[in-house]
Amino acid sequence: MTETVTVREVGPRDGLQIARSVMPTGAKVRWIAALADAGVREIEIGSFVPPKLIPQMADTAEIAAAVSQMPGVVMTALVPNLKGAQLAYAAGVRRVIVPVSASESHSRANTKRSTAEAIAETGRIVSWARTQAPDLHIEAGCSTAFGCSIEGVVPERRVAEVAVSVAEAGVHSVVLADTVGYANPAQVKHLIAAVRQVIGAKLHALHLHDTMGLGLANALAGLEAGIRTFDASLAGLGGCPYAPGASGNIVTEDLVYMLESMGFKTGIDLARLIAARAVLHDALPDEPLTGQVAKAGIPKTYRTAD
Amino acid sequence: MTETVTVREVGPRDGLQIARSVMPTGAKVRWIAALADAGVREIEIGSFVPPKLIPQMADTAEIAAAVSQMPGVVMTALVPNLKGAQLAYAAGVRRVIVPVSASESHSRANTKRSTAEAIAETGRIVSWARTQAPDLHIEAGCSTAFGCSIEGVVPERRVAEVAVSVAEAGVHSVVLADTVGYANPAQVKHLIAAVRQVIGAKLHALHLHDTMGLGLANALAGLEAGIRTFDASLAGLGGCPYAPGASGNIVTEDLVYMLESMGFKTGIDLARLIAARAVLHDALPDEPLTGQVAKAGIPKTYRTAD
Repeated sequence: MTETVTVREVGPRDGLQIARSVMPTGAKVRWIAALADAGVREIEIGSFVPPKLIPQMADTAEIAAAVSQMPGVVMTALVPNLKGAQLAYAAGVRRVIVPVSASESHSRANTKRSTAEAIAETGRIVSWARTQAPDLHIEAGCSTAFGCSIEGVVPERRVAEVAVSVAEAGVHSVVLADTVGYANPAQVKHLIAAVRQVIGAKLHALHLHDTMGLGLANALAGLEAGIRTFDASLAGLGGCPYAPGASGNIVTEDLVYMLESMGFKTGIDLARLIAARAVLHDALPDEPLTGQVAKAGIPKTYRTAD
Repeated sequence: MTETVTVREVGPRDGLQIARSVMPTGAKVRWIAALADAGVREIEIGSFVPPKLIPQMADTAEIAAAVSQMPGVVMTALVPNLKGAQLAYAAGVRRVIVPVSASESHSRANTKRSTAEAIAETGRIVSWARTQAPDLHIEAGCSTAFGCSIEGVVPERRVAEVAVSVAEAGVHSVVLADTVGYANPAQVKHLIAAVRQVIGAKLHALHLHDTMGLGLANALAGLEAGIRTFDASLAGLGGCPYAPGASGNIVTEDLVYMLESMGFKTGIDLARLIAARAVLHDALPDEPLTGQVAKAGIPKTYRTAD
């Protein structure tokens, strides 16, 4: 039986927040529509943050309204606090990701608060949702889980503690994020085992960057460790404004090529996915687009899993 | 105990043969010296082929003379036939690689002969070496083992047959080459198991290209399957003149970063290896240099295996 892997496109959030220019709302909607048309079923459409901090994300509620008309697409959005969660829910989003950095320094640089404060805020979102938004899925995004550009090594014990704290705060799931792209495959397997030991099946996704070129090798390690949901961004768009040296997310096209070639079903049509790059390029002509499969072309040996 | 992995630099052969310009002999020697200085212990210095076919390789005997003065460096050279092997041996090379393509079409395009003729020629090299060059190590390079840009899928059975034939012809070892970069990690593990079943420990290396971005993921798969020797090229230089769409080899710097981070010992100093890129760039200023670690810089979390 063919196993399914969920590829969650995060370009419209993680990719755009660091882009040099602001993508117009219409262009974002066209891009997301092209992704949906290629079969991408879960898309992080943006974040609900103060527009003066990240102007690229000012129109996320409008995007949500448009995307909620696209059949079969699950929207996710990043929310740093209760207010963001409330705005997301009001906009029709039913799946939010709350960033909680395992590195104290990254937490302060990225969100001007400590890790403990981020955990406490996550608890407030959970409490509010229990009565006011019972159908809201809340995922904690454990940033810098594999290392930090400011602090360097982030101890595994620390990541496990943060995972336990957010699980106790009541989140439904946890994604481990290699925010700056320092992870290696041995570390990926080891950390997944350590975190699974303390929060079990609540660990459900990996968010990887390709800073050191190890992105797909790390995805393979996660896959072998049982992870079945991976964040990626079309053309490798992305980075982190407060993580110097971080390059883009792993490339959605290359990840889909790897997964389908290995016999996993993603539901994504690779040719249409590559075609979506043109929509992205039209909207952000100055942004470099990466990705090897798009460059080389889909080889004649390619077979999809189904 | 720390396990050792051999990273075999193939840029001076696989990288240069497709370069737009011919690298002067002195520059090649400086580049190889920089690699040796970084701790690279096995280097494919060139090929012994007719200079009118590949002018970039016309000076391989001179290179061999210079490199044989570098302490601790094991030279390898590619030789398509007995004459090449004789020239290599006379030049001081004690380890040759004979290409034998698993794809009939690639074999004819690349060397103007069938796979069977390549296997027969390999046998002639072995016979000659038994009496005339007993200290020559002969490795068969099984090209297009993971797919072919002309024929598409290359059946696993076919690769196993070629591996058996070259083993029976008397080669000391076999390297499986993903000449065009179509491999995926599941295929890597599966093919290694199939080939090992028929030729055992004679299977000893993987030669990977990063055409689809899966190069390091495929290396990880090989590593997990027990392979401990990997070809790579500095800055990802390389390709195949008769394999359209093939991009460069996996990037030596990124591979070393992955291996050392995972706790394998390569003996290579990553900072010095990155410094060797400048020597390469000076010699071939128009050639694009790839590689993520060099671009991002070695992160503060990096620890070598020893």
